[in-house]
Amino acid sequence: MKTLGLDLGGTKILAAVVEDGHILARQHHPTPRTGYTAVVDALTRAAQTLLRDYPDVTRVGLGSPGPLDIRAGKVVFAPNIPGMEDVPIAADLSERLGLDVALENDANAAGYAEHLYGAAKNLQSSVYITISTGIGGGIFVGDRVVRGAYGVAGEVGHVTLEPGGPLCGCGHYGCWEAVAAGRALARDASHAYGFALTTEEVFRRAQAGERLALKVVDQAAMYTGLGLANLVKTLDPDGFVLGGGIMRTGKFYLDKVQAAADTFVQGFPTAKLHLAQLGTDAGVIGAASVAARELATVEGPSVPT
Amino acid sequence: MKTLGLDLGGTKILAAVVEDGHILARQHHPTPRTGYTAVVDALTRAAQTLLRDYPDVTRVGLGSPGPLDIRAGKVVFAPNIPGMEDVPIAADLSERLGLDVALENDANAAGYAEHLYGAAKNLQSSVYITISTGIGGGIFVGDRVVRGAYGVAGEVGHVTLEPGGPLCGCGHYGCWEAVAAGRALARDASHAYGFALTTEEVFRRAQAGERLALKVVDQAAMYTGLGLANLVKTLDPDGFVLGGGIMRTGKFYLDKVQAAADTFVQGFPTAKLHLAQLGTDAGVIGAASVAARELATVEGPSVPT
Repeated sequence: MKTLGLDLGGTKILAAVVEDGHILARQHHPTPRTGYTAVVDALTRAAQTLLRDYPDVTRVGLGSPGPLDIRAGKVVFAPNIPGMEDVPIAADLSERLGLDVALENDANAAGYAEHLYGAAKNLQSSVYITISTGIGGGIFVGDRVVRGAYGVAGEVGHVTLEPGGPLCGCGHYGCWEAVAAGRALARDASHAYGFALTTEEVFRRAQAGERLALKVVDQAAMYTGLGLANLVKTLDPDGFVLGGGIMRTGKFYLDKVQAAADTFVQGFPTAKLHLAQLGTDAGVIGAASVAARELATVEGPSVPT
Repeated sequence: MKTLGLDLGGTKILAAVVEDGHILARQHHPTPRTGYTAVVDALTRAAQTLLRDYPDVTRVGLGSPGPLDIRAGKVVFAPNIPGMEDVPIAADLSERLGLDVALENDANAAGYAEHLYGAAKNLQSSVYITISTGIGGGIFVGDRVVRGAYGVAGEVGHVTLEPGGPLCGCGHYGCWEAVAAGRALARDASHAYGFALTTEEVFRRAQAGERLALKVVDQAAMYTGLGLANLVKTLDPDGFVLGGGIMRTGKFYLDKVQAAADTFVQGFPTAKLHLAQLGTDAGVIGAASVAARELATVEGPSVPT
């Protein structure tokens, strides 16, 4: 079944017609900075351009940063896009396009793509963790996204790993995101060096063997290993998929995280870590897959697609 | 469907014939301290006594302390029962009784009973936490136990809540169990008072308003609130059921835990806490329910039972 995926990011909107995890056509546009209506306009335009060539597409999936209210189809708040506060984006977009729109949070969407078609495609259950400026996650069992009662399941970036630790953007202290995401690495390294460093610079210096940078990167890897070990003891998934900007450093960082996780799971099953495979396409493929799956749920699995 | 439940505890074996969550007949025996064969003998006797009166029972569920290897039907290690190390208890008991035996860990069994017939019977998804000497847990969605890839899902007592905190029986530091279970409370209070106290005494003194005991109880409640908040952000269940010896203090402790959880989930959905309702029968009802459910799975849900 062909569906349309929309991936709303802080800097760009990616739209694609997707079938069985393959992108048939794509569009991208910068994300407007001028408010909510402009964002809906841009999403509508990106979608309509593709829908003209694929008139058989009847279902749209939208991946958005959040927090979201999935049941109401609303973005509660999107910190990196101006004007996105308590907006009924699914209904508004559905009205513009004349098609059903399924809303999903961006980490769930990307993780779902990896679960169905990427690094976890052979696993019954997987947990996806995306580590970039912040940390997001998603939980997948069989062909399903685990959303929880309020769509919050998988928000593991805000699990407390260090009580009384650094303040997080969510208002709590010592969240996984506050001790191990890109912003935390840049903060800790800037403090250690005495001047401002970007996350990229921290990794460059760590890979070059600089002791201060290595210490900062090792500590972040330690916390991420701890977070993964806690997920083994809570969910015991078949495997984990790690994605996001920081994982683009590949084996260098993955090995450190695996070593930390191995330490913290001794006596319990191993955390089997996999690097994400679908790159920046994961979000849009996942959003489209959510749309396909939602329809399958509504119509029942025996309807030919 | 009538099934037989067996609840193997550190001090006693409880056996019961159960139908739809109701106990039709029961037996109990002390748990032998003389080795594995004596334990299997005692379980067999308890079962056979009941099976004589209920010859239509064809399926047995056994709840056991662990860790277990569910797939192999083995108890890997049961710290409180002598001789229980790497023993194929499901197969051995099945051979003695001539019936299928389903093995489940004791916390999953008790939580499953609460999910199906007790405090969580109206919830689609629930997480059960039992707080006594240690801390165990179980995760339930729909009519199913979430076991994970190796049967470890729900082992939340060994999630790290305080990195570098007190050493746990599992060999790691700062586990939920090591900072908030009965043994931890007794340890902390004994240290504060300068003489040995039992967990019961700590709660008695705290309820009488003694400052030192209150401090210890409040800290344990804080950690349990933190653990629950982390589970909201990870799983977002419809609710939590709290059971085990410590929760028998009822509202006194529950209110403290709820207050702590409320603090740590601000900005996220509330942790809805419920006291367990089935008391010491939960384990045997749950074990019997696992047996009924396993059979339903094998034969398919459309077979009349």
